[in-house]
Amino acid sequence: MSSSLSCSASDLIPLLSGGGANSTAAATAAAEFICGRFETISGKFTDASYAIDNTYLLFSAYLVFAMQLGFAMLCAGSVRAKNTMNIMLTNVIDAAAGGLFYYLFGFAFAYGSPSNGFIGKHFFAMSGFPKASFDYPYFLYQWTFAIAAAGITSGSIAERTQFVAYLIYSSFLTGLVYPIVSHWFWSSDGWASPARAENLLFGSGVIDFAGSGVVHMVGGIAGLWGALIEGPRIGRFENRGKPVTLRGHSATLVVLGTFLLWFGWYGFNPGSFAIINKSYGSSPGSSFYGQWSAVGRTAVTTTLAGCTAALTTLFGKRLIDGYWNVTDVCNGLLGGFAAITGGCSVVEPWAAVLCGFVAAWVLMGFNKLADKLRYDDPLEAAQLHGGCGAWGIIFTGLFADKTYVSEIFGGDPNRPYGLLMGGGWRLLAAHVVQIVVITGWVSVTMGTLFFVLHKLELLRIPSEDEIAGMDPTSHGGLAYMYTEEEIKNGIMVREMGRENEHV
Amino acid sequence: MSSSLSCSASDLIPLLSGGGANSTAAATAAAEFICGRFETISGKFTDASYAIDNTYLLFSAYLVFAMQLGFAMLCAGSVRAKNTMNIMLTNVIDAAAGGLFYYLFGFAFAYGSPSNGFIGKHFFAMSGFPKASFDYPYFLYQWTFAIAAAGITSGSIAERTQFVAYLIYSSFLTGLVYPIVSHWFWSSDGWASPARAENLLFGSGVIDFAGSGVVHMVGGIAGLWGALIEGPRIGRFENRGKPVTLRGHSATLVVLGTFLLWFGWYGFNPGSFAIINKSYGSSPGSSFYGQWSAVGRTAVTTTLAGCTAALTTLFGKRLIDGYWNVTDVCNGLLGGFAAITGGCSVVEPWAAVLCGFVAAWVLMGFNKLADKLRYDDPLEAAQLHGGCGAWGIIFTGLFADKTYVSEIFGGDPNRPYGLLMGGGWRLLAAHVVQIVVITGWVSVTMGTLFFVLHKLELLRIPSEDEIAGMDPTSHGGLAYMYTEEEIKNGIMVREMGRENEHV
Amino acid sequence: MSSSLSCSASDLIPLLSGGGANSTAAATAAAEFICGRFETISGKFTDASYAIDNTYLLFSAYLVFAMQLGFAMLCAGSVRAKNTMNIMLTNVIDAAAGGLFYYLFGFAFAYGSPSNGFIGKHFFAMSGFPKASFDYPYFLYQWTFAIAAAGITSGSIAERTQFVAYLIYSSFLTGLVYPIVSHWFWSSDGWASPARAENLLFGSGVIDFAGSGVVHMVGGIAGLWGALIEGPRIGRFENRGKPVTLRGHSATLVVLGTFLLWFGWYGFNPGSFAIINKSYGSSPGSSFYGQWSAVGRTAVTTTLAGCTAALTTLFGKRLIDGYWNVTDVCNGLLGGFAAITGGCSVVEPWAAVLCGFVAAWVLMGFNKLADKLRYDDPLEAAQLHGGCGAWGIIFTGLFADKTYVSEIFGGDPNRPYGLLMGGGWRLLAAHVVQIVVITGWVSVTMGTLFFVLHKLELLRIPSEDEIAGMDPTSHGGLAYMYTEEEIKNGIMVREMGRENEHV
Repeated sequence: MSSSLSCSASDLIPLLSGGGANSTAAATAAAEFICGRFETISGKFTDASYAIDNTYLLFSAYLVFAMQLGFAMLCAGSVRAKNTMNIMLTNVIDAAAGGLFYYLFGFAFAYGSPSNGFIGKHFFAMSGFPKASFDYPYFLYQWTFAIAAAGITSGSIAERTQFVAYLIYSSFLTGLVYPIVSHWFWSSDGWASPARAENLLFGSGVIDFAGSGVVHMVGGIAGLWGALIEGPRIGRFENRGKPVTLRGHSATLVVLGTFLLWFGWYGFNPGSFAIINKSYGSSPGSSFYGQWSAVGRTAVTTTLAGCTAALTTLFGKRLIDGYWNVTDVCNGLLGGFAAITGGCSVVEPWAAVLCGFVAAWVLMGFNKLADKLRYDDPLEAAQLHGGCGAWGIIFTGLFADKTYVSEIFGGDPNRPYGLLMGGGWRLLAAHVVQIVVITGWVSVTMGTLFFVLHKLELLRIPSEDEIAGMDPTSHGGLAYMYTEEEIKNGIMVREMGRENEHV
Repeated sequence: MSSSLSCSASDLIPLLSGGGANSTAAATAAAEFICGRFETISGKFTDASYAIDNTYLLFSAYLVFAMQLGFAMLCAGSVRAKNTMNIMLTNVIDAAAGGLFYYLFGFAFAYGSPSNGFIGKHFFAMSGFPKASFDYPYFLYQWTFAIAAAGITSGSIAERTQFVAYLIYSSFLTGLVYPIVSHWFWSSDGWASPARAENLLFGSGVIDFAGSGVVHMVGGIAGLWGALIEGPRIGRFENRGKPVTLRGHSATLVVLGTFLLWFGWYGFNPGSFAIINKSYGSSPGSSFYGQWSAVGRTAVTTTLAGCTAALTTLFGKRLIDGYWNVTDVCNGLLGGFAAITGGCSVVEPWAAVLCGFVAAWVLMGFNKLADKLRYDDPLEAAQLHGGCGAWGIIFTGLFADKTYVSEIFGGDPNRPYGLLMGGGWRLLAAHVVQIVVITGWVSVTMGTLFFVLHKLELLRIPSEDEIAGMDPTSHGGLAYMYTEEEIKNGIMVREMGRENEHV
Repeated sequence: MSSSLSCSASDLIPLLSGGGANSTAAATAAAEFICGRFETISGKFTDASYAIDNTYLLFSAYLVFAMQLGFAMLCAGSVRAKNTMNIMLTNVIDAAAGGLFYYLFGFAFAYGSPSNGFIGKHFFAMSGFPKASFDYPYFLYQWTFAIAAAGITSGSIAERTQFVAYLIYSSFLTGLVYPIVSHWFWSSDGWASPARAENLLFGSGVIDFAGSGVVHMVGGIAGLWGALIEGPRIGRFENRGKPVTLRGHSATLVVLGTFLLWFGWYGFNPGSFAIINKSYGSSPGSSFYGQWSAVGRTAVTTTLAGCTAALTTLFGKRLIDGYWNVTDVCNGLLGGFAAITGGCSVVEPWAAVLCGFVAAWVLMGFNKLADKLRYDDPLEAAQLHGGCGAWGIIFTGLFADKTYVSEIFGGDPNRPYGLLMGGGWRLLAAHVVQIVVITGWVSVTMGTLFFVLHKLELLRIPSEDEIAGMDPTSHGGLAYMYTEEEIKNGIMVREMGRENEHV
């Protein structure tokens, strides 16, 4: 049939006015004429939807990628100057090695459908790409998530880990451990996916929308084992176990990184819908309210959770420490984001405020506990991504809204939702299972790996290197370079300024 | 009716070929068949428009949010190292407290329609959200604007303001003062809105498209009162009033912040259309020219105004100071942006060049005046956002183009436009009114607030704290941390470099 | 005809059921009724496409603009602290002067159609804008490319060039030299364009999709001549020619800049389609695969090339230098991007991996050669953008895929494609011609300009200024300012930290 929309009345008139002997033939021609155009229209809507949805998905992916820059700056600012090169290199290599490994194996393990519930098995090195269900923008989006998980772990083991160990665990995490977890919860074949066709876990499946568990807990638990097995940095705890703050070398970089992560989280959470041109109404155009609204609501809940966590931390730490602490506020903010990530799309804005409030205390509590247990995590990554991530999983089980769950995941209209919203215990039960299996899986895989590296003496750097710093010993020198004259001039110009530099 | 577009000729043929007794019934069925599909199509266009417009609006909001990072870096670089933590914390808290207050009150005061011309009164804590007129992405976009205003003010009072005072004024500005101003000019209920149904101010209303007045003047005038009431920083003026430059500690951060603001301004100005899928032609598809063109033109005018202001400042300051000054060029650039913000959508590119040229001199002039009056504003925020913002308001009254005003604001085809474009005095008169009422309102509210804080001794920090720096006294230490060894190594590595480090 | 889609059965029934005397009149009315609606629908699709495509193009332009910030930070970090202000100012001025010159002349020379094959000749100062073929977003997008070229060159001549020389060459490059090259390859009038109607170069034209040649080689060759004519920085080569690394002052800024460039490259390469809503199927909706897929694939090939180049450099430099070098990895990454830029849209992901692998060795090889020839390029810009850009041009001639070339460039279904893909020698031949003519044209224009500036003693700064640094001598002081107390406090706080600062 015609793939044109051009419609000339002079062509159509004889068809509609046909009578007598040829009336059936005319009617047939008229119907084909009209139906051909409707088919064309239908096809053009399909094309436009692909264009709209992929534009939205690609730019979301770019934002999530920007989080890698955020991690790099946050980590750099949080370590001492002598280890800056090292931590930044790990962040660059995360993205680079992650790119190759996710291309070769990772995506296949995660989304290689059709498959079993445990692991995917198609699309290695993108063979068979693209499919109707998996186009290139989707691959790019998922890659940006994979590298985020590895970035989290690098924070926990900062300032004392051999670069070779880093290369090994990062590849293993991005290429295998993380993809398998994402398969379980996000592939429609996954055993705990809320989108699988049948046999939903507790009749519900796990709602971990953008990955409080799949990304944040995975990265955090991996970091926990790495940091535990390595032990704390030299000087972090005094003889009697009194904790000593080893301040990072630049709060400016911490704030820069935090804001970049905030910016990128708008790709992470609202972008996880993957599709924006989807009506929730009973028929097209029947309502202004659709997935575009849900995407916006997700951006709002994300914002509110982070904001509330930041303010809670500001006042909480003021009470505890006696001053207004900017780096702790940054961490509190990120804890709020890590917590809301799982339920961002299915909760009301007021619930997001609550989520952030609790997340701040969860982080402060875990940090207190870490000090008591002499656990040293330079970026608080296990506490923040692991702890607040776990809280976010519970939170979703408590506060997921019936309507939102139904709009987004469809299926059975009576599917479980948040316990405190009247949706019963089943969603929460599934979420408890999620916490358990992620903790178990990551502990078994990454814990073992870190332990083996430790036994092979590939994990921790020698203590003389740790004291001197990793940059001079492994990376060719410090990240910063000022000549004596420049330092002097910096001071002198200011002194001269008092005398001579008038505007 | 059917919400499907599927069209099978075999279904339609009997309907169109129906004759004899059942011809009316057949015709009815045929008509319903065809009309049902047209309705579906119409609905799908509506859905697609929501998806397109909200994608455009959300990503614009993300860009405007990035300006908050730009402000943080610009401010950090412009203050002395000892106050870096303080100013960055104010920027983080702006966004965080702004998020909560704008959610609870601010948006309601600004856009809570239906309301009177002075203040909105619905949607507190997003109750009743979403509406057809106000969906979640719109809330997010408006929130990013609210926090920008508070960010401006923080620059004026930097390096000497108690953090508690900051918390109070920031909440008051974001939650009340700014929302009310935005209601006046941007809500369709506002008394000076160009979009209200009737009783337009001077038959025109104020065209402040993206907020030279609503955002920049509000932030700038608030900062002016804060800085005036606090007085200049210690050491800023010598005994005989000779001004002394207190250089910021990092021009790199200033440039970083400036570029980020430039980047974000592409969300601020072109994003203010809120809708991009709108034809300006007489019928759909009749012209390649539509709101997408106007959005692009707005990006171009914004760019040209900033570029011209930067170049003008480069050469102007070269003549005045005798050297090529990078931080002044950055400020000039931002002054050009602040000026074009109000009229960005309704002027020609050549007019934008003029706008930027004048803005540079306005800023240089106000800076000269500030020195004469011993007014100290570490970021030049009152001069830049207040001064150049006011110029932008006048500029729009002079150069608004008839066609563009009509395309964007519609209504009476003979509505006033720029004086120098032949559009009469009424638009300019409305704009003079805008400058007066913004100055008055912000002075009464924020001026009073700063005065009360001053009287309660909550505004300025003690002078010993000011000399020592706010970071060591209120924020737990300096933002930067280098060990003696690191500083020495930095120097030594370079010296060694001459001998050993060959590529 | 009606521009409405409203369709009331009661209106249509009498038209379809009309019989007897008025049957022709009724049929005419029915046909016009139906056709009018199809026309409206067709128009609305056109409008929606403009909205979608321009949203995609504008946000891509914003990303490319962010590369300017990336260049500024990369350059700042790569020079010594005493020249930071200078190099950052050049980056700001690139964008600002580029904005004006590209508005006044550049775009006209590049795209002023109809024109001859050598240079465009319409649209000076955007007169006659917008056209159906050139709307405002397109101008903005092209401007961001023009300023990128000048940014590349500034790296080669860093730390020793007079600011006036910079102003002159930057204007000349952005306003004339680059626009003419982009006319040749990217304007449909250009003599080597793959999109011209007839007389394609070797029946093929040059496929330089996002500008390995047009942008990167142009900037790199210009830098080569500037750096050659100026000679190396003082201290860069010892008496016997032994190269000495003059380390940049901040690897943190290098990493920040690199990640920002990576982020922006997603606007540069995938954005170069300009249009995303385009089906590749035989009829609308016939396939999920369309230009949106190709845009995504381009993002994937770009990512993989950069990642592979980064990893190759990591291991390559580990073997050569004995340590894990972060700044070299950053440069390797960027070399991979510069190489894939030309063929990003027409090659398979696996080919992109190969492209990046070779690019890393090309860069390492040219750097070795530069050291041998005592060529000093502080940013390795000529090696990276010139060398890897040239490799990218060859690579495309070898690996361009038949299907992709046909989908994107259309025309003759038997047009040439990559030699190693079975597409014959003609594409590769055209690409060799591209390398030759770009090298020739830029050498003649920019080489001559730099030589004249050199002869007029306007090019290089006096050696005493070079030793003291350009910031103190030309830009009013150093970029950084710390007081003696701040430096001491930084150290002291840490020492105190060991005793007092417990969490």
